[in-house]
Amino acid sequence: MAAPSPGYSITVRVQAPAAVDTTGVVAAAVAEAGGALTALDVVESRAGSLVVDVTCNASDAEHADRITEKIAAVPGVTVRKVSDRTFLLHLGGKLEVVPTVPLKHRDDLSRAYTPGVARVCMAIAENPDDARRLTIKRNTVAVVTDGSAVLGLGNIGPEAALPVMEGKAALFKQFAGVDAWPVCLDTQDTEEIIRTVKAVAPVYGGINLEDISAPRCFEIEQRLRDELDIPVFHDDQHGTAIVVLAALTNALRVVGKKPEDVKVVVSGVGAAGHAIVRLLDAQGYTDIVGCDRHGALDPDPATQHSDEFRGWIAGHTNPRRVSGTLKQVLAGADVFIGVSAPNLLTGDDIATMEPGAIVFALANPDPEVDPVAASRTAAVVATGRSDYANQINNVLAFPGFFRGLLDAGARDITSEMMIAAATAIADCVHPDQLNASYIVPSVFDSEVAPAVAAAVRRAAEDSGHADATIDDEETR
Amino acid sequence: MAAPSPGYSITVRVQAPAAVDTTGVVAAAVAEAGGALTALDVVESRAGSLVVDVTCNASDAEHADRITEKIAAVPGVTVRKVSDRTFLLHLGGKLEVVPTVPLKHRDDLSRAYTPGVARVCMAIAENPDDARRLTIKRNTVAVVTDGSAVLGLGNIGPEAALPVMEGKAALFKQFAGVDAWPVCLDTQDTEEIIRTVKAVAPVYGGINLEDISAPRCFEIEQRLRDELDIPVFHDDQHGTAIVVLAALTNALRVVGKKPEDVKVVVSGVGAAGHAIVRLLDAQGYTDIVGCDRHGALDPDPATQHSDEFRGWIAGHTNPRRVSGTLKQVLAGADVFIGVSAPNLLTGDDIATMEPGAIVFALANPDPEVDPVAASRTAAVVATGRSDYANQINNVLAFPGFFRGLLDAGARDITSEMMIAAATAIADCVHPDQLNASYIVPSVFDSEVAPAVAAAVRRAAEDSGHADATIDDEETR
Repeated sequence: MAAPSPGYSITVRVQAPAAVDTTGVVAAAVAEAGGALTALDVVESRAGSLVVDVTCNASDAEHADRITEKIAAVPGVTVRKVSDRTFLLHLGGKLEVVPTVPLKHRDDLSRAYTPGVARVCMAIAENPDDARRLTIKRNTVAVVTDGSAVLGLGNIGPEAALPVMEGKAALFKQFAGVDAWPVCLDTQDTEEIIRTVKAVAPVYGGINLEDISAPRCFEIEQRLRDELDIPVFHDDQHGTAIVVLAALTNALRVVGKKPEDVKVVVSGVGAAGHAIVRLLDAQGYTDIVGCDRHGALDPDPATQHSDEFRGWIAGHTNPRRVSGTLKQVLAGADVFIGVSAPNLLTGDDIATMEPGAIVFALANPDPEVDPVAASRTAAVVATGRSDYANQINNVLAFPGFFRGLLDAGARDITSEMMIAAATAIADCVHPDQLNASYIVPSVFDSEVAPAVAAAVRRAAEDSGHADATIDDEETR
Repeated sequence: MAAPSPGYSITVRVQAPAAVDTTGVVAAAVAEAGGALTALDVVESRAGSLVVDVTCNASDAEHADRITEKIAAVPGVTVRKVSDRTFLLHLGGKLEVVPTVPLKHRDDLSRAYTPGVARVCMAIAENPDDARRLTIKRNTVAVVTDGSAVLGLGNIGPEAALPVMEGKAALFKQFAGVDAWPVCLDTQDTEEIIRTVKAVAPVYGGINLEDISAPRCFEIEQRLRDELDIPVFHDDQHGTAIVVLAALTNALRVVGKKPEDVKVVVSGVGAAGHAIVRLLDAQGYTDIVGCDRHGALDPDPATQHSDEFRGWIAGHTNPRRVSGTLKQVLAGADVFIGVSAPNLLTGDDIATMEPGAIVFALANPDPEVDPVAASRTAAVVATGRSDYANQINNVLAFPGFFRGLLDAGARDITSEMMIAAATAIADCVHPDQLNASYIVPSVFDSEVAPAVAAAVRRAAEDSGHADATIDDEETR
């Protein structure tokens, strides 16, 4: 059973006799059921009886039921109501749209709305690019999904994907002051998605694609990049690749190896794997072997691949032309990066890697290899989970990345920008902090997003991708 | 020349000698140029010289230039910079997207985002209707335009329309706590608009169509009403019709006439005129004559009309089968409602109406008839402008109307709801306040939106259009 988590927190309202030990007995019942008690609040106290809110973390829905039953079994105690704190938090949604201008009296209205607004409209009609200065396009990103590959939940559709997109938008604002808005599409047709995103694009200064299944996500991203004049980023690909590169940069520092010297095995050639391979390639990693469920991709140009993106990986990697299963090609490798499926490898498989092995087992929630088992021989182990050291979390990248794009007025995204972002993240772990258990900064490190933003902006300026007419004062 | 307006406010930064009368001389220069001085702020004072921000209202861009020249002509004064306050206000846009949940530490993240959010997603996947409780769909409206008929500016496109849509969204929040988001579409094709709005609809609890030209707006609205399960409202039609009906209700109270007894002439059979005719018809007005630029629409069923909507008006109005020009059919009428073009009528034309005539001349910015001339014989005169009494302003209707729809969980809009909203607006003018110069409440009357919301909700509940599972506590 998983450990109790604040993601599964319940509040049980009970009525109990006003005895000296009532709260103690209730607390004991929670502990006995394996719950982690976080609060006991007396909400009502009368002669002879108390009403108490018992808040505790459970590990899942069944566990929450068992805890509730244990509490109800305490003599004299009646359960009145069980609330799920995660659901309570979600009631009515997690975002609001707030005016940044005063609207208290007639003069306000005449500037922010009619008649004053007409002049601003006409200025933009004459020079559409002014929308980047005089409207929310200056600071706003669309978080676009079709709900086809949401978290590890699969194809759950646009409505069910919305809580994730709201959360993402909230993180954009919280970490980097970027206004982000969920665009959940009621279609999974590639052409229809492309057409719809283009149709709604005038409002946005950037597009963040999210949780769209491969290989459709590749074509959608590529086409939108070609056909729109604002940057398009697929977080599941590039956000992941940036943080992986940042983590790998620091992991190599820990073990004292160099990118051009290491043998890298990537398990999984979907959205994330594809982007990781491309970014490592751009950064000078020369020996990468991509694996799907059948093993190493065959680099022979005569081989047919199921899509052109897989074909690109096969054609641009595997310089030693190795073949075999994942386990076979892992022997002698320096780096394992898994973005694939749970429990593909054992600690013994990891033991076949070179000394100073680096293992990133990022399948969620269950990694490719048990991180504890991997740690027996690997020098550095990272996962996607928050309950182990070295969590590879995209939130380290996307807020600052888009902050930098918007600050620069960039219309495109380049490998240089992504490498700059990865380097900035890596460098947020200062030399005196760096060790095998701390290769990426904390998600809540407030230094990260501004550092990433500055690096991306500089990369845009250095490569001629920034808009010199954009003024810092225009962003809130 | 129009009067100086706060919608055209400039701030002129000047350097001037530190003499006793400097500010007085500058103020005199502004007055001489016809500007309305609103502030003189000394921003820097040194031995011998001052820097002063001179803020004043102008009537248009040329006037602002003339004021600036007059100031520059004052001996010793140098103009450093001229800022347009309306443009300054618009820098970076007028909306932001703000999280409503805390995201300060790991426990917050695990409830609002992964892993906790996954349970909320799964709940919605199992019951998509739960999106109306657990996401921003609960309280969010799309403000949709294609930029084809923006204010009086015409077809200026989606980017140039965005400042208006942002303003509208700001008003939704300010007046009724509704979260509204601009959806500016880069297409003016009817089918493409319908397809795009349907594709983005999962995020929204209602659709407010805005500034889409007729007759496309009719088909777009009708199709979206048929094909979506959320309410669809075209503000240029129904918002205007609701406020017109409210104003007419009170105007009839002022002159002591009844809906079933009055002869009404409506000039203009586009979006607004069409909706006004339909709503007056639903409310029991029996003698309505619709006019286009050629005069009264011919009620003969054999006549071909340019679109089916115009045909509907012709077929459902004009019971006396009158014909002739607007001026001709106006003679003997009790009510004139203009939603057409400037300066079609003179005071003498209004004088041909029945005693106790009611004139709503709503063409903007220049009404169908000069309101001062109309007042010579008409008992009640209203316009769309804020510088005359009785401003017919949609902001009296749309925020409260959508508040009511969202509170009720309504999926459709009915005539009963619109009539209820109009009655609520009319009743916000209390009997002791009602007179010929005060037939609609002030735009800033905080009683209006809650009254409209309650009336719409009640109408939805009474007609079985409310969702009983929607809980008040879910809305912020």
